[in-house]
Amino acid sequence: MGTEQYSPMLPLISDEDASPEVKAVFDDIRETRNTDFINNFWRVLANDPDNLARTWDELKNLMGPGTSLDPMVKELIYVAVSTVNNCTYCVRSHTAAARQKGASDEQLAELQSIVAAANKTNRLAIGLQVPVDEAFQ
Amino acid sequence: MGTEQYSPMLPLISDEDASPEVKAVFDDIRETRNTDFINNFWRVLANDPDNLARTWDELKNLMGPGTSLDPMVKELIYVAVSTVNNCTYCVRSHTAAARQKGASDEQLAELQSIVAAANKTNRLAIGLQVPVDEAFQ
Amino acid sequence: MGTEQYSPMLPLISDEDASPEVKAVFDDIRETRNTDFINNFWRVLANDPDNLARTWDELKNLMGPGTSLDPMVKELIYVAVSTVNNCTYCVRSHTAAARQKGASDEQLAELQSIVAAANKTNRLAIGLQVPVDEAFQ
Amino acid sequence: MGTEQYSPMLPLISDEDASPEVKAVFDDIRETRNTDFINNFWRVLANDPDNLARTWDELKNLMGPGTSLDPMVKELIYVAVSTVNNCTYCVRSHTAAARQKGASDEQLAELQSIVAAANKTNRLAIGLQVPVDEAFQ
Amino acid sequence: MGTEQYSPMLPLISDEDASPEVKAVFDDIRETRNTDFINNFWRVLANDPDNLARTWDELKNLMGPGTSLDPMVKELIYVAVSTVNNCTYCVRSHTAAARQKGASDEQLAELQSIVAAANKTNRLAIGLQVPVDEAFQ
Amino acid sequence: MGTEQYSPMLPLISDEDASPEVKAVFDDIRETRNTDFINNFWRVLANDPDNLARTWDELKNLMGPGTSLDPMVKELIYVAVSTVNNCTYCVRSHTAAARQKGASDEQLAELQSIVAAANKTNRLAIGLQVPVDEAFQ
Repeated sequence: MGTEQYSPMLPLISDEDASPEVKAVFDDIRETRNTDFINNFWRVLANDPDNLARTWDELKNLMGPGTSLDPMVKELIYVAVSTVNNCTYCVRSHTAAARQKGASDEQLAELQSIVAAANKTNRLAIGLQVPVDEAFQ
Repeated sequence: MGTEQYSPMLPLISDEDASPEVKAVFDDIRETRNTDFINNFWRVLANDPDNLARTWDELKNLMGPGTSLDPMVKELIYVAVSTVNNCTYCVRSHTAAARQKGASDEQLAELQSIVAAANKTNRLAIGLQVPVDEAFQ
Repeated sequence: MGTEQYSPMLPLISDEDASPEVKAVFDDIRETRNTDFINNFWRVLANDPDNLARTWDELKNLMGPGTSLDPMVKELIYVAVSTVNNCTYCVRSHTAAARQKGASDEQLAELQSIVAAANKTNRLAIGLQVPVDEAFQ
Repeated sequence: MGTEQYSPMLPLISDEDASPEVKAVFDDIRETRNTDFINNFWRVLANDPDNLARTWDELKNLMGPGTSLDPMVKELIYVAVSTVNNCTYCVRSHTAAARQKGASDEQLAELQSIVAAANKTNRLAIGLQVPVDEAFQ
Repeated sequence: MGTEQYSPMLPLISDEDASPEVKAVFDDIRETRNTDFINNFWRVLANDPDNLARTWDELKNLMGPGTSLDPMVKELIYVAVSTVNNCTYCVRSHTAAARQKGASDEQLAELQSIVAAANKTNRLAIGLQVPVDEAFQ
Repeated sequence: MGTEQYSPMLPLISDEDASPEVKAVFDDIRETRNTDFINNFWRVLANDPDNLARTWDELKNLMGPGTSLDPMVKELIYVAVSTVNNCTYCVRSHTAAARQKGASDEQLAELQSIVAAANKTNRLAIGLQVPVDEAFQ
C-alpha cells in the first residue's frame, strides 16, 4: 500500500546536494549498514550537519553489536519507546530493523503486548497515586 | 533515603480487609513470586477486584518465563515504557524486578541510553515531518 | 500523610499581594465555589493576571452546571486527562472535585480501569499500526 | 474521504485464517455487538490470540452496561484518553462508538473543550511546579 | 505533495453556515491576520462557538506583538510543544507561522535539535531517577 | 523548602570515584560554566562514561552562544519541552538556567501561558481530527 505524504519541514538532501561533512556521514551509514540505501530520516537531518553527525555517531555506537545488550533486543526497546511516543516513522523503521536482526512475528506481537500492559499499569499507578513501597525507595 | 508520601486515591487493602476474591489474587501473587511481600500497586488496585484479577492474570502470563522473549528483557521493556510515561512507581519497581532477573548496572545504563536516543530521534522525525520511505510502508 | 515540597517557579500570591485584577478573580472563585479557600494553582497563576482571568473564566464556564454534560462526568474526564498527562496536582485536586460532585469510590475505580484499558489499546493500535477501517474514516 | 494507508506491522487475520481460539473471540464480538463487522483492531490483534482474548474480555466487561458509569460516558472517557495519546484509530473508532451510544455533536464538542482545558491547566501546574495544597494530600 | 484526508469529527463550518457569533470571530481573524484565509482549525472549532471565541481571544492576546517575548520566539515555542505532543496539524501550521514571522531554515533546524536534546535528557533524568539538587529546590 | 528524595537508579559518582574519562568531562563542565558545581544529572549519567561524554558534548554545542538562536531563548525552549514531558528535574534546572541567562518572571510566566495554550490547541486539533489545510501541506 502506498500513501502520498506531506513534504518535510526541511528539504530532503540528495547525494548531489550533500556537503562534504554530510557526504562523510552518508558514506559511513552505507559502509556500516552494508547497503546503498540512505533513509529519509538522515536526508532531512542533513540540513543540520552537526546534528546529523552527532546523531549518527550516537546511534552507531549504541545500536551495533559489542555492547551489554543484544542488538535485536535494543531494536525492540527502540520500537517500544517509539510506540509510546507515537512516532509512525520510527515504529515502522525500527520494526523493520528488529526483523532484520532476527525478531519473529511472535516476538514482535509479544513486545506490543508488554508495551500495552505497561501503559495500562503505568496509568493505574499514576491515577490511583500508589505510594512507592519502602522496598523500591 | 525515605520520603513521606501522599495518600493514594483509594485505600490500601490490607490482608485483613481483603475479600475472598482479592485474597485469592494475593495468594497467587505470593506463590508465583515466592515471597510474602505484596507491593502497594496490588493493594490499591484491590479496590476493584475484577481489575485486580484481570491485571494480575495479564502480568503473570506476560512477564513470566516460557514465552518468546527472555524475562529480563521483558522487564527492560517495561522500564523503557515506564520511563517514557514518567511513572516513578513503575520505573522504580520494574528496575528492581529487572535487577532481580539479572540485569546489571551496565545493562540498565545502556537501556536508558537507548531510551534517551529513541526519544531524541522520535522527536526529530515528528518535528521535521520526515516522510516514511517506501521501504518502510 | 504530608510531604514537604519544593517551591513553585513563581511565588504564591497571597490575598495581601493581590492586585485589583487578581483580587477580582479570587473573589469570583470564592463566590462561585461558595468557600473561602483559594487553592495554590490560582495563587501561582496569579503572577500572570491575564492568564489567571482567562483560565478561571474558561473553567468556570466549562465545568459548572447548565451544559450538555453532567458536572460530575466532566470532573471524571478531567481526572482521566490529568492521569494520562501524569499531573499529580491535577489528579489529586480533580479527584477531590469529582468526589465533591458525587463520584463514589466505585466510580473512581471504574474510571481508572477505563483509563488504563484505553492506554493499553491506544498503544496496540499505534504499535501494530492498525489501519483505520473505512467505517471510521 | 478516503486515504490509502500503510500496511499494519502484523497481517490482518481474516475469518478464513482464524484459529479456533481467534474464531471464538470473533464470534463473541459479533454476538455482543449484534453486527457482523469485525474492525481492524481485532483482526491485527488476532496475531497474538492470548492478548486478543484477554483484551476483548477486558473491554467487554468494562465498556458494556451494568456498571457504575453510563456506557456513553465511558466512551467519552475513552475518547478523552485517546485524544491525549494521539491515537487516530482510537479517536475515530471510539467517537463513532460514543455517537452510537447517544452522544450528540454538542456533547462531543464539549468533551473536547474539557480535554483541551485540562491539558492546558495540567501543563501550568507542572511547568509552574504548583505545590499540592494540604487539602489535596 | 497532497494527501486525501479523513473527515473531521465535527463538520467544517463554512462562511455561509457561520452563526453571527462565529462570523464575528472569523472577521476578527481576518482583520488581525490581514488575510482572507481561515484555516481548518477555526472552521472545526466553530462547532462550539464559545470555545472558538475563547480560544481565538487567547491566541490573539498571547501570540501577537507587544508582550515580553518576541512573536517569532513564541512561534518556535509553539512548534516545540506541538512536536512533543506529536500534533501534525500544529507542527505544520506553526512552523509556517514561524517562517512568516522570520524564522530561517537554520533556526528551525536548531530548534528541532534542542527539542530532541531536551527529550533525550528529560528521559535520562526520569529513567535514572536523578534527585533534584538543593540548588534547584 | 526541602524534600528528602529517593535514591537514583544508579549511584551518584563523586569526584573521587570518577574515572579519567569522567573526570575530563567534569573538568570541562566546570570550565565551560565557570563554576565548581556539578549537578546530579551529570553525576548519575557518569555511570555510562560514553553517554556522559556524548550528552555533555551535545548540550555544550547546542546551548551555548554563537548559534542562530539566543541562549536565553534556547533555555526557554528547553523548559517548554521539559514541561510537556513532565520532568521535574529538568523544569527546575532549566528554569534556573533561563533565569541565569536573563529570563524575567514575566517572560517565564508568558512562556508557560504559551506552553499551556499550545497544549490546549494541540489536543483540539487531534481530538477533532482537523484536516491539514493545503496551505500547510
